[in-house]
Amino acid sequence: MGGKARGQVFSGQRDRRWKVGILGATGYTGICLVSILLGHREVEISLLTSNTHKGLALSSVFPFLKGECDLSLEPISAAFEKDLDVLFLCLPHGQSMDIVPRLYDGRRLIIDLGADFRFEDAQLYERFYGPHTSKELLSCATYGLPELYRERIRTSKLIANPGCYPTSALLALYPLLKAGLLEGEIYIDSKSGVSGAGREAKVQNLFPEVSEGFRPYSVGSHRHEPEIEKEVRSFSQVPVLFVPHLLPINRGILTTVYTKVRKGLTTEDVLSLFRDTYEKEPFIRIMEDGAFPDTRQVRFSNYCDIGLKVFADGRAVIVSAIDNLVKGASGQAVQNMNLALGIDEREGLRHPPLYP
Amino acid sequence: MGGKARGQVFSGQRDRRWKVGILGATGYTGICLVSILLGHREVEISLLTSNTHKGLALSSVFPFLKGECDLSLEPISAAFEKDLDVLFLCLPHGQSMDIVPRLYDGRRLIIDLGADFRFEDAQLYERFYGPHTSKELLSCATYGLPELYRERIRTSKLIANPGCYPTSALLALYPLLKAGLLEGEIYIDSKSGVSGAGREAKVQNLFPEVSEGFRPYSVGSHRHEPEIEKEVRSFSQVPVLFVPHLLPINRGILTTVYTKVRKGLTTEDVLSLFRDTYEKEPFIRIMEDGAFPDTRQVRFSNYCDIGLKVFADGRAVIVSAIDNLVKGASGQAVQNMNLALGIDEREGLRHPPLYP
Amino acid sequence: MGGKARGQVFSGQRDRRWKVGILGATGYTGICLVSILLGHREVEISLLTSNTHKGLALSSVFPFLKGECDLSLEPISAAFEKDLDVLFLCLPHGQSMDIVPRLYDGRRLIIDLGADFRFEDAQLYERFYGPHTSKELLSCATYGLPELYRERIRTSKLIANPGCYPTSALLALYPLLKAGLLEGEIYIDSKSGVSGAGREAKVQNLFPEVSEGFRPYSVGSHRHEPEIEKEVRSFSQVPVLFVPHLLPINRGILTTVYTKVRKGLTTEDVLSLFRDTYEKEPFIRIMEDGAFPDTRQVRFSNYCDIGLKVFADGRAVIVSAIDNLVKGASGQAVQNMNLALGIDEREGLRHPPLYP
Amino acid sequence: MGGKARGQVFSGQRDRRWKVGILGATGYTGICLVSILLGHREVEISLLTSNTHKGLALSSVFPFLKGECDLSLEPISAAFEKDLDVLFLCLPHGQSMDIVPRLYDGRRLIIDLGADFRFEDAQLYERFYGPHTSKELLSCATYGLPELYRERIRTSKLIANPGCYPTSALLALYPLLKAGLLEGEIYIDSKSGVSGAGREAKVQNLFPEVSEGFRPYSVGSHRHEPEIEKEVRSFSQVPVLFVPHLLPINRGILTTVYTKVRKGLTTEDVLSLFRDTYEKEPFIRIMEDGAFPDTRQVRFSNYCDIGLKVFADGRAVIVSAIDNLVKGASGQAVQNMNLALGIDEREGLRHPPLYP
Repeated sequence: MGGKARGQVFSGQRDRRWKVGILGATGYTGICLVSILLGHREVEISLLTSNTHKGLALSSVFPFLKGECDLSLEPISAAFEKDLDVLFLCLPHGQSMDIVPRLYDGRRLIIDLGADFRFEDAQLYERFYGPHTSKELLSCATYGLPELYRERIRTSKLIANPGCYPTSALLALYPLLKAGLLEGEIYIDSKSGVSGAGREAKVQNLFPEVSEGFRPYSVGSHRHEPEIEKEVRSFSQVPVLFVPHLLPINRGILTTVYTKVRKGLTTEDVLSLFRDTYEKEPFIRIMEDGAFPDTRQVRFSNYCDIGLKVFADGRAVIVSAIDNLVKGASGQAVQNMNLALGIDEREGLRHPPLYP
Repeated sequence: MGGKARGQVFSGQRDRRWKVGILGATGYTGICLVSILLGHREVEISLLTSNTHKGLALSSVFPFLKGECDLSLEPISAAFEKDLDVLFLCLPHGQSMDIVPRLYDGRRLIIDLGADFRFEDAQLYERFYGPHTSKELLSCATYGLPELYRERIRTSKLIANPGCYPTSALLALYPLLKAGLLEGEIYIDSKSGVSGAGREAKVQNLFPEVSEGFRPYSVGSHRHEPEIEKEVRSFSQVPVLFVPHLLPINRGILTTVYTKVRKGLTTEDVLSLFRDTYEKEPFIRIMEDGAFPDTRQVRFSNYCDIGLKVFADGRAVIVSAIDNLVKGASGQAVQNMNLALGIDEREGLRHPPLYP
Repeated sequence: MGGKARGQVFSGQRDRRWKVGILGATGYTGICLVSILLGHREVEISLLTSNTHKGLALSSVFPFLKGECDLSLEPISAAFEKDLDVLFLCLPHGQSMDIVPRLYDGRRLIIDLGADFRFEDAQLYERFYGPHTSKELLSCATYGLPELYRERIRTSKLIANPGCYPTSALLALYPLLKAGLLEGEIYIDSKSGVSGAGREAKVQNLFPEVSEGFRPYSVGSHRHEPEIEKEVRSFSQVPVLFVPHLLPINRGILTTVYTKVRKGLTTEDVLSLFRDTYEKEPFIRIMEDGAFPDTRQVRFSNYCDIGLKVFADGRAVIVSAIDNLVKGASGQAVQNMNLALGIDEREGLRHPPLYP
Repeated sequence: MGGKARGQVFSGQRDRRWKVGILGATGYTGICLVSILLGHREVEISLLTSNTHKGLALSSVFPFLKGECDLSLEPISAAFEKDLDVLFLCLPHGQSMDIVPRLYDGRRLIIDLGADFRFEDAQLYERFYGPHTSKELLSCATYGLPELYRERIRTSKLIANPGCYPTSALLALYPLLKAGLLEGEIYIDSKSGVSGAGREAKVQNLFPEVSEGFRPYSVGSHRHEPEIEKEVRSFSQVPVLFVPHLLPINRGILTTVYTKVRKGLTTEDVLSLFRDTYEKEPFIRIMEDGAFPDTRQVRFSNYCDIGLKVFADGRAVIVSAIDNLVKGASGQAVQNMNLALGIDEREGLRHPPLYP
């Protein structure tokens, strides 16, 4: 296995760095994790696995990492042999449930970026994803949305990292749900960059099929709808409708929520509520009255920007923007790891968004 | 003034072609009109005006037209001197109201692609656009949405071509509105390509400010909202909320409408209603159950594709896609001209969408 | 098999339309041929084949064609059963050589958009492409670059449509080669849109792998280099070096040629030579002194725009731009068909480029 | 003036951070400098100026910096009042020559990202740029290409940061020039992203004018040609021809050089030469035989990737890729600053490229 990643300076708060493994390192979320962790001062990447490219150096598959991370890609079985402190699972849905039972020991930290452990309710999972083979572990998992579940995450050893769309939608809804001020249906119109579709060869994601076009998909049938809904349900019974669209950009999700708030509330009231609720959140930025987010303004960062407007009759529009690969996946996974390891939550995630 | 446009073969149904002038030929809607009319067999482009480029040949400003249309660009004053049958006004909002009174004589056909004559109600116009200086002509104008007002258009001499967003939204709503089956708020989430912003030098529309980003703008305050609303109002009093977004593509509008229909209606019921309502429409295509439009599938054509889904509790999603410069502007203007001149409505608009 | 394509008006110069088949109709060149032929007044699309989608209606695979062309896709074997006047082969390299011997009868017109019949010299072909199984037919084929071989094309029954890069490079070189004024090496720096890579699912052509990037490929080893070289060789022995690059656009090839011309020649001399050589060419546009082509200015048209500059010491830059799917493939194939059938060369190809 | 930038942790090697000012902070190179310096542990941003936006907080113009850098933008005159250690000039060409004489005192470090001090030869400058009003300072300036002039840069107080195209071209040529192995003309075919054109409102750089197109410009007349040539001249008299093209991407320059090397040299010979020459360079990566750079693989980093191929007759292709705003401008400026201040050359520039 190749050399250490260049530029990693240990911050020195422990006697050694945490050893980290990434299972499925050559998909978009896996490689984004590598990029983030190379700048993290308290961990060391010790294992990268890939079915497709095993045996190759990571940097021969991704030349941008040449001189930055020259580790070799190993088969997934290596995960069972190495002594690792943290395991990130960046695998296709359905694979984690087979692997987690063999890795979960109450000491190691496991963070699953797939959907397998996001639902406490096995029936709900199975209705949308098919049979679950590790139901007994579902109750051990924590839904890793720090803004909602920070304290549970701190003590968890199995974290189910939320989906990218649910992250963007729930952060836009949470303050109103928590305050009990949300009334009327919730329509969630989301638009995502193509990296959200993964790094698989599919005709529909070829450049000429995506560029210069725009389309909805899985209208009212996307598997992120029940994931959003189960969180909404713990606060309110208003119905949720979710429509995702494919944007001709690499990175970014913008979610526009249409709903109703308690009559009489003004835009400034609700902005205050959002500012208060997220006051101590390092990665949530609430816009000024009249301003709205742009995916461009959060690219490559772990920020979620939120803007909103309320109308006299209670109708409201709330807009959130995240980078789908960072706050929507790998950045949030690192945020979860930091919490669970007792590290500063922002470590590895401090770089500002990149523009233009 | 230079030579005739190549390739124009007169169809021979009259003894001569109609003489057409385009005022403001070098903006995106103007140049798109030129492109369409070059393929129209019953008209002849006789005048092109441009403030910015007057004196130049059109093809020196737009080299793609070299050998296709080498007419010179004239000052707008030329419009008052020429003997023209049809005038298209592709001018910034507020300019048509000064020019139309000098051109309108009940014989010439005037088609205004701007907003000046879209509102019968002068007060409504003035609330959103500022003072109107030709109020007496407002009642002479016909709102040029053929699917709603075909018969009136046939006999009109002053046609107010609809805005791009209203076209996409109203075509998605009309069958339900007409049938009285729409209940509950209407949320209109629209996404438009950048050509909709016009061909003016603005930092916010530079390539590096648009590419790889996505953002809403004029949330609940866009001037197309009252234009949509005035048409909805003639059927129903449900409130309308309109949020436009800027897509990093050249052409295309996709509009996703969230609303409620009368309980008990199924997706197939509503699809049937749409198919029946638009049965004879040459430019409306209703998708199969489960299918939704993509702006890519209508690019460069005058089509409006519509797909929809209805949920058990009456909530509904209706999605429409148009090319904002064709059905959303210049193509619809030609469709209106064809109707008003008694020409086959599809003339000049027969080419299929272009892919990829 | 479904209905006729809408909008096809027979021009009436013969007693019936020519019957055309397209083998491999669902790749980018196949579907582009369909689009062009739908606007051609003297042919009728009678057969479309597809291995991947056989049994489906073309418009169910490509919804943009709904109402325009609803023919069903048949297996390739149907080509041997139908009575067709013209066959376009849009197949992967190596498949035509198996099929052409069974179709070629000296009466039917066969136009192959692949490489199988582009080389008269079987050895040269085999060095770059592998074994050729129909060598006996190589001498029957005509290299279908009308600007070079128009007369031969008129009487040919087997036309090898040139590659997209060779078309752009050879049109930039031909006047100098023919006049014997080219001296010194020829460096050909070409940049192509992604549709040139075909409609196959490949990771390297996914949107996130192409967008916001730019790269050369097959440097000095691309199979279009010998295709260019064999044509250059008939005039001159100067060495040719060809480097293609992948542009993050759908359509378009821009080729920048660096070479030397006879010392003493000026830019205006060489522009005159180009204008004279291509004087009667309907699809070549020579730019003014100081102006250079842009792929945007030829998109969706059969034009090749050429601009150039010559320096005092004889060094020269020649730049050409084409739409890789039109003049670089399907448009040129129709131009060849028109010539071979005795139809106006521009039929079906008269529409101007589309902008923006 | 607002608060400190978040996340800046002083590395502690001096008793205080260097105070830095950026003149012209709201152009693309200015804002890129801000982004880089926010992650630099030994400097503190003390002044940002902007003519267009003075008085505003930087983060109100660029919301991506909210919470990251909330400094106010001051008029340029503030530069003469503040006690600054380092001044970066990101001004339009021609402005630095008026300001530098008032700032240059042999103690402060001045780094000019414009062209005013790139030419020692005033006549050469004036032939391409117009009158120079500070000729006496030309000999004080160092051309800031560290790979060529590292030692001079270390002791310089006035550094002329190279142009983006010259950086990409000279790094591709330097090893051969230095070794005296370059023979025959040099043809430089460069392709740049749009951010290289600056953040000014120009119609030609609007999204619909750039997207889906590709074009050369300033063929053989770009002002970066003499900048490249003056450096080549110090080694060799071979003529240089430079043709830039505009890519529809935000960031990145790919330069393809065509030339001849001494006959007998192989690809591996020349790759070895490149590896040796750049052996200790922290930001140059030489590709393996057969591999070539992609702008995607260097985005947002200070790397220059180089690949090449040599043919039997001495013809050679050398390809380099940089991020035009980083190694082509602001990153290289920080590299120069680090050298001149005696800081680790890589400080602030350690992050790997970002993908996808």
